[in-house]
Amino acid sequence: TNPPYRQLVSYAKLKNDIRCHSLNIEMPSSAKFQLNDVIEAQQFDRDLLNAIFEVACEMEKIEKNSTGSMMLKGYLMATLFYEPSTRTRLSFESAMKRLGGEVLTTENAREFSSAAKGETLEDTIRTVEGYADIIVLRHFESGAAKRAALTANIPVINAGDGPGQHPTQALLDVYTIEREIGRLDGITLGLVGDLANGRTVRSLAYLIAKYQNVKIYFVAPEVVKMKDDIKEYLTSRGVEWEESADLMEVASKCDVVYQTRIQRERFGERVDLYEEARGKYIVDKYVLSVLQKHAIIMHPLPRLDEITVDVDSDPRAAYFRQAKNGLYIRMAILKLLLLG
Amino acid sequence: TNPPYRQLVSYAKLKNDIRCHSLNIEMPSSAKFQLNDVIEAQQFDRDLLNAIFEVACEMEKIEKNSTGSMMLKGYLMATLFYEPSTRTRLSFESAMKRLGGEVLTTENAREFSSAAKGETLEDTIRTVEGYADIIVLRHFESGAAKRAALTANIPVINAGDGPGQHPTQALLDVYTIEREIGRLDGITLGLVGDLANGRTVRSLAYLIAKYQNVKIYFVAPEVVKMKDDIKEYLTSRGVEWEESADLMEVASKCDVVYQTRIQRERFGERVDLYEEARGKYIVDKYVLSVLQKHAIIMHPLPRLDEITVDVDSDPRAAYFRQAKNGLYIRMAILKLLLLG
Amino acid sequence: TNPPYRQLVSYAKLKNDIRCHSLNIEMPSSAKFQLNDVIEAQQFDRDLLNAIFEVACEMEKIEKNSTGSMMLKGYLMATLFYEPSTRTRLSFESAMKRLGGEVLTTENAREFSSAAKGETLEDTIRTVEGYADIIVLRHFESGAAKRAALTANIPVINAGDGPGQHPTQALLDVYTIEREIGRLDGITLGLVGDLANGRTVRSLAYLIAKYQNVKIYFVAPEVVKMKDDIKEYLTSRGVEWEESADLMEVASKCDVVYQTRIQRERFGERVDLYEEARGKYIVDKYVLSVLQKHAIIMHPLPRLDEITVDVDSDPRAAYFRQAKNGLYIRMAILKLLLLG
Repeated sequence: TNPPYRQLVSYAKLKNDIRCHSLNIEMPSSAKFQLNDVIEAQQFDRDLLNAIFEVACEMEKIEKNSTGSMMLKGYLMATLFYEPSTRTRLSFESAMKRLGGEVLTTENAREFSSAAKGETLEDTIRTVEGYADIIVLRHFESGAAKRAALTANIPVINAGDGPGQHPTQALLDVYTIEREIGRLDGITLGLVGDLANGRTVRSLAYLIAKYQNVKIYFVAPEVVKMKDDIKEYLTSRGVEWEESADLMEVASKCDVVYQTRIQRERFGERVDLYEEARGKYIVDKYVLSVLQKHAIIMHPLPRLDEITVDVDSDPRAAYFRQAKNGLYIRMAILKLLLLG
Repeated sequence: TNPPYRQLVSYAKLKNDIRCHSLNIEMPSSAKFQLNDVIEAQQFDRDLLNAIFEVACEMEKIEKNSTGSMMLKGYLMATLFYEPSTRTRLSFESAMKRLGGEVLTTENAREFSSAAKGETLEDTIRTVEGYADIIVLRHFESGAAKRAALTANIPVINAGDGPGQHPTQALLDVYTIEREIGRLDGITLGLVGDLANGRTVRSLAYLIAKYQNVKIYFVAPEVVKMKDDIKEYLTSRGVEWEESADLMEVASKCDVVYQTRIQRERFGERVDLYEEARGKYIVDKYVLSVLQKHAIIMHPLPRLDEITVDVDSDPRAAYFRQAKNGLYIRMAILKLLLLG
Repeated sequence: TNPPYRQLVSYAKLKNDIRCHSLNIEMPSSAKFQLNDVIEAQQFDRDLLNAIFEVACEMEKIEKNSTGSMMLKGYLMATLFYEPSTRTRLSFESAMKRLGGEVLTTENAREFSSAAKGETLEDTIRTVEGYADIIVLRHFESGAAKRAALTANIPVINAGDGPGQHPTQALLDVYTIEREIGRLDGITLGLVGDLANGRTVRSLAYLIAKYQNVKIYFVAPEVVKMKDDIKEYLTSRGVEWEESADLMEVASKCDVVYQTRIQRERFGERVDLYEEARGKYIVDKYVLSVLQKHAIIMHPLPRLDEITVDVDSDPRAAYFRQAKNGLYIRMAILKLLLLG
């Protein structure tokens, strides 16, 4: 029988506390860097990732301190969302408030510069930068965050721009692997589900390629296979990768099984193809039974039934801890952008 | 002629100050209790109600102190609303901020776990509990709050779950009677209007039955009469009740006339039935003329014309003070759940 | 070649710092006044405008101080918006938070008192005033703000009521002229674009008429000419005004060219008339070439192409500084209404 959820949380905390220390050692305090905006996964190298992860680790301690931090007191963050993404928005706003900062929120920024009125993104940014100290932008167009950062005199964080980038999600994914497994070099990773459309798995593959001796398995239904650009990139970086149709075998070899949702909205009228793809690779008790003791299951959430709920109570189910790590990563990013 | 509105407020405040002291005496400080979640009216017994009311009384003093309280500084409340209810949301958020706490808001939580994406409420709760210290949930499904409370490791407050419960409304109604009339035992209560569909009158009848020598009159159009389950419950608890078609006679006997809105949305295409029911029992100057001097008019708001506006200036019109009591009750609940 | 945007901001700041001092001298501290609500431009005379501008100038210094002000700590502002206006809302909320105050937000206040439920504005105000210390109201009906102010026992600020008033926009326009040009008496002003429908130019003409030796040029396409009521008002106040079809000539004479957007939504099906009006008077490099060195271009934003983007980098392009002045004016108004 599995321990109850509350105990699992404590167990995870304990693991994290130990690793926080090891991270401190990895990152010499002399390594200085300048972070102006967070726009795309490509801007991060190993040193920068380590520096962010070190701060994120400190943020865990701050968040658990009930009196709260006043580190960002007097700072104002504008969450400028051109499409709703409540999960991402709440995570950023919680991060800001946990550090004593304040928030201006808009989830209907499309009306701000409505088609009818036709204001450019650049004009909107120039107005909003007068009201806040940092902008978190969610936009429906790829490249919008970069345009905003070029215009703004204050830091801009990309919280997802259409089919483009969602860099803080990529950061929290890598951070979760580091925190849960204890290392990134030499990791074996199984990417499962919708690999064609999933922004998160593509960014994760990109970032993990910065580490040594990484091995990646792709497990995807035929219609949503990983695209050639990422495969070619991995090959060019010396990352070993392999496609497989056997989730059980892959699960038995991996440190991390990263499951994703088949995105129905990408299938249009072809409900038959969607249904076929959706049921193909499910993470359930059988998969857990072959998973190594130290390994973990990750998922960017929301999930449907691609991970069965009876998996949740297993200590290796890391997806809710992964979501929580998004808070620490965003606290770290806000601190680094506003205070250095 | 009636005193102007501002004087009425002062008059009400004076009455309240006197009663705050009497409440302090009723509740011995040795009576300890544990409040983990606020899910349904049924969870409250007399001792718990008294304890909450005592704290609510203290909250009146805090709210009137212009420097504000920092009692909940560092605490973060997530208002997770699956359907908009601006009145309830603002009341909770004001309560949190009056105590120095912070708020994460969402009024479109349906998009958070949209039908398209299909996330369960349980998964959403597990994510949100990572961002906040307490969740205020409004949901369209009966029982949603209980499911959320079973999942969450942080306190959950039910701010209305579909046709189910809205316990803080029930608490503020009982608190208003206590504050305005000075007692709950021996109270005579007239429930008027839409008794079939009104969640508030049903909850109020339920809670008031915990007190001694209560008498209830039901005054409702035929199509929206009080249902048998509540009548049977009252009888089983020894509460005397009676149906009447004579609002004037009932008003002359009651300590509290609790008027409610006929809910048009329940009548569908039968506009004729709605119009007939709607005009049947109106609280106006004539009703006031027979109302006892110490008695009060209550209403859960919003009102249409079931109370005429010329009643507002009478000191016995308690409905805006009742709405304000919602603030104190929610401040008390937040304090008790977060600090004990 | 033009200096980069960042330098322009510093330049503007320097100009402003100098003028802040001159303003301090203009306004003797003995001039006391009482501000209860902000409802319409008509309520402001020269002394009151000067007093507000003096406070706005102090607010610039407070906003630039990174530690922030706690002037309004413990105060709660409710932004009650019956129609979305993200720009105005964020400006007010930023103003409140820059002074240490807190905010309750609603952008869907129509649902608060939805047509289905039919609550009056007065009832809504009486409920909301129980949750906050000041109300910022945006409404779709002319006169709504006045009704709200008559009902409320706390201050009300009109953030736009339908085709009626938007007094804080008018204040920030006049403040911008004062700050940029250094005086209001003797100013020459060119109002350009949609003068028939533009609420801002009408209010500005109204307020500027309070000053001495003002000259106004109207430059508008035939279909959207300035209406007779304002012309007659100006004449009655001794303000010289003239209509012109020659933007270049007007630009060469003015201290301020105030450009506005042709509002497509006012033309209905007549797209041809809209297109004709829209392209007629554009502020571009050619206009800049005749503009005096000390003069400025203003615009209430959002803009389409009635000011070309290559104008933005000219120091005389004042429209983003104008938007920022909205913050200072709103900080001043909040301070004056809540603290006196």
